[in-house]
Amino acid sequence: MAQNTRETLLDAGLTLLLRHGYNDLGIQAVLKATGTPRGSFYHFFASKEAFALEVVDQYMVEVHQGLDAALGDTSLPPLERARHFFELSRDKYRRDGYFGCMLGGLGQELSGTNPAFARKIEECFAVIVQRLADCMQEAKEAGDLPADTDPQHMADLLLNCWEGAALRCRLRRDPAPLDEMLDFYFARAQSA
Amino acid sequence: MAQNTRETLLDAGLTLLLRHGYNDLGIQAVLKATGTPRGSFYHFFASKEAFALEVVDQYMVEVHQGLDAALGDTSLPPLERARHFFELSRDKYRRDGYFGCMLGGLGQELSGTNPAFARKIEECFAVIVQRLADCMQEAKEAGDLPADTDPQHMADLLLNCWEGAALRCRLRRDPAPLDEMLDFYFARAQSA
Repeated sequence: MAQNTRETLLDAGLTLLLRHGYNDLGIQAVLKATGTPRGSFYHFFASKEAFALEVVDQYMVEVHQGLDAALGDTSLPPLERARHFFELSRDKYRRDGYFGCMLGGLGQELSGTNPAFARKIEECFAVIVQRLADCMQEAKEAGDLPADTDPQHMADLLLNCWEGAALRCRLRRDPAPLDEMLDFYFARAQSA
Repeated sequence: MAQNTRETLLDAGLTLLLRHGYNDLGIQAVLKATGTPRGSFYHFFASKEAFALEVVDQYMVEVHQGLDAALGDTSLPPLERARHFFELSRDKYRRDGYFGCMLGGLGQELSGTNPAFARKIEECFAVIVQRLADCMQEAKEAGDLPADTDPQHMADLLLNCWEGAALRCRLRRDPAPLDEMLDFYFARAQSA
């Protein structure tokens, strides 16, 4: 029961933080959306900041599920696996209503003043980049990327360009920037 | 004198909104930073939202100055002009302390709930893209881009990838993602 309340609060946090960002979201809205008394919230989370940081962890559980599904599919060549991860992310954005990526949203909003969030979001990006870099390394070994490719560098570029496309997707509620970016990146990644 | 107060408030807004974002910034902080009485602020701006939208206009004045300087330098080939605009933007980010791009920051923070800001930021991006697209068109005519290039499409990609790199720059207070993105884009843009 207690565990259910905690999960219910985190699930609501995923939806509400993605849409509102951090500062526009009051705890009261989370309580109202979930029918949870204030005392229960503070039983599970020391503060709004602690709650939001745990919501980011929950978001990352879903990101890793996508990475596992896409990068683990060794029936595909490595570059197609990497692309598939972002296609799964795009499908998730569609289900959410094209509000883009929570990491990019909170990273932009909070990293100017809140070092804990800046560090947290950068750590999340670094973990995603590392998994993509392993995939790029495989692509390089398979001859699908030039021999002088730096896999980490190519993974960083991919993630960063995606985050910019996700911003534009959020502004326009439109997936087109996501696909256009993937088409550009994967068509050009293979050239020297 | 009145004009000076208005400009002083907008200048402070440029610095404070870039760092804090919108919801974390109180009018009181703007008044304190500028030594302006509350009544003066509301003489010039109907609300915090009206103020922030005018700060975005002020930001765009600087963006257009950069575009004029870079794209107007016809001693350079068109693609080098486009790159130079982003190098000037990077130099501006350095002077600001590597807080990235205000358009990306406010766009991420506010576009989930505030249609006026979503529209405003998307309009700003569209204007920048149009100016870059004209430059891409020139590059295409000069044979520096493949004959089947869609200049608008290439300009959108460039801006979007830049915005993602600017997020990472903000998170890490580090310009490296900006240069890496430009190197990748301009090396690959010319291949078919």
